Amino acid sequence: MTAEKPRGRFITLEGGEGAGKSTQARRLAAFLEQRSLDVVMTREPGGSPGAEIMRHVLLSGGAEPFGPEAETMLFAAARRDHLAVTIKPALERGAWVICDRFADSTRVYQGHAGKVPLGFIQALERVTVGEDRPDLTLILDLPVKVGLARVASRGEATDRFEKEGLAFHNKLRAGFKAIARAEPERCRLIDAAAEADVVAESIRQAVTAHFGLAPRLVAP
Amino acid sequence: MTAEKPRGRFITLEGGEGAGKSTQARRLAAFLEQRSLDVVMTREPGGSPGAEIMRHVLLSGGAEPFGPEAETMLFAAARRDHLAVTIKPALERGAWVICDRFADSTRVYQGHAGKVPLGFIQALERVTVGEDRPDLTLILDLPVKVGLARVASRGEATDRFEKEGLAFHNKLRAGFKAIARAEPERCRLIDAAAEADVVAESIRQAVTAHFGLAPRLVAP
Repeated sequence: MTAEKPRGRFITLEGGEGAGKSTQARRLAAFLEQRSLDVVMTREPGGSPGAEIMRHVLLSGGAEPFGPEAETMLFAAARRDHLAVTIKPALERGAWVICDRFADSTRVYQGHAGKVPLGFIQALERVTVGEDRPDLTLILDLPVKVGLARVASRGEATDRFEKEGLAFHNKLRAGFKAIARAEPERCRLIDAAAEADVVAESIRQAVTAHFGLAPRLVAP
Repeated sequence: MTAEKPRGRFITLEGGEGAGKSTQARRLAAFLEQRSLDVVMTREPGGSPGAEIMRHVLLSGGAEPFGPEAETMLFAAARRDHLAVTIKPALERGAWVICDRFADSTRVYQGHAGKVPLGFIQALERVTVGEDRPDLTLILDLPVKVGLARVASRGEATDRFEKEGLAFHNKLRAGFKAIARAEPERCRLIDAAAEADVVAESIRQAVTAHFGLAPRLVAP
């Protein structure tokens, strides 16, 4: 006989460009896997076959014929697919889901730093996400110039959001910090200007404390 | 000095396949234009440059990687664009907007006859449509077999919805009739099995009565 698996945990990483979300998502996944937890790493936009198609359209600017509110709804449609196909099934089998960007990115990129009213975004978020909110959101915070310098040093092609001006990126940072202040029970603000090892340790401590994990591994 | 134009009127035509919506929309437009009204004809899915792109994706089945709820959100995103770009500006300048399909088609095709919970569709409709609900919805009703025979006689390529089986089309009809019963102040059920001239006259009478137009034109 097997006991029914408890529902998994849903952790999102948020923050502006160059905050190190992808790197830290991988390191957090490795930390949790060392504890023999079933870990699913995913990202937005994208994370399911339908949503990955939309990711390409949205990040390339191919949705420009759409106004900003309709574009926000395209992100929401991709999110609904991602939840249905990837995130909810993983949580139901007891996995820990680590998602690189989620609904807070919509609030900040399209709302705080964009043209879409926050009331519209929040109403849409309630419809799209419903009860499937993250259990913990790690907001990686660092000065805008530090983040943009990291993006530049990658030497990769930049997407439409990375190309925006300094004022836009300052609004992103302020938006994420406002969310962290408004929802302290869900969000932890992480200083992401430090070395990657230091940031990873901050994240491990935040996750360990939030979910009441044993602070150190005990050999089996 | 010019008096400020009063807000226009928003009329939608709804119904299953082969009900004659496109033909009747044109005839209604001609009737209103004879009264020197500014008339805008449009349709869904589509009706704006962004939404027309989505129309092609949705009707060709190109959104099949998306689950039914995410697909419903793609329709909603197209609708939001259509409202913002085409419908609201026309209403604000005082035009009469005649739209071939609108939010009731989502309720019926994705809800009553599809897999998407009506509660989700209605919550999404409130976010998408808000206060911009139609002033009058003409629901063109006819037996399913009569409608499908009309579609077949057109000799055009059929889309994914026209290809569905009889049970699906019966659910469509029942869904539209349920909406007409539930919202009698907005909806008029029109017998669309009659000759086109007879249907057009029913529609003219319904529109004339609903908006209190003078029943006959008086020469200037």
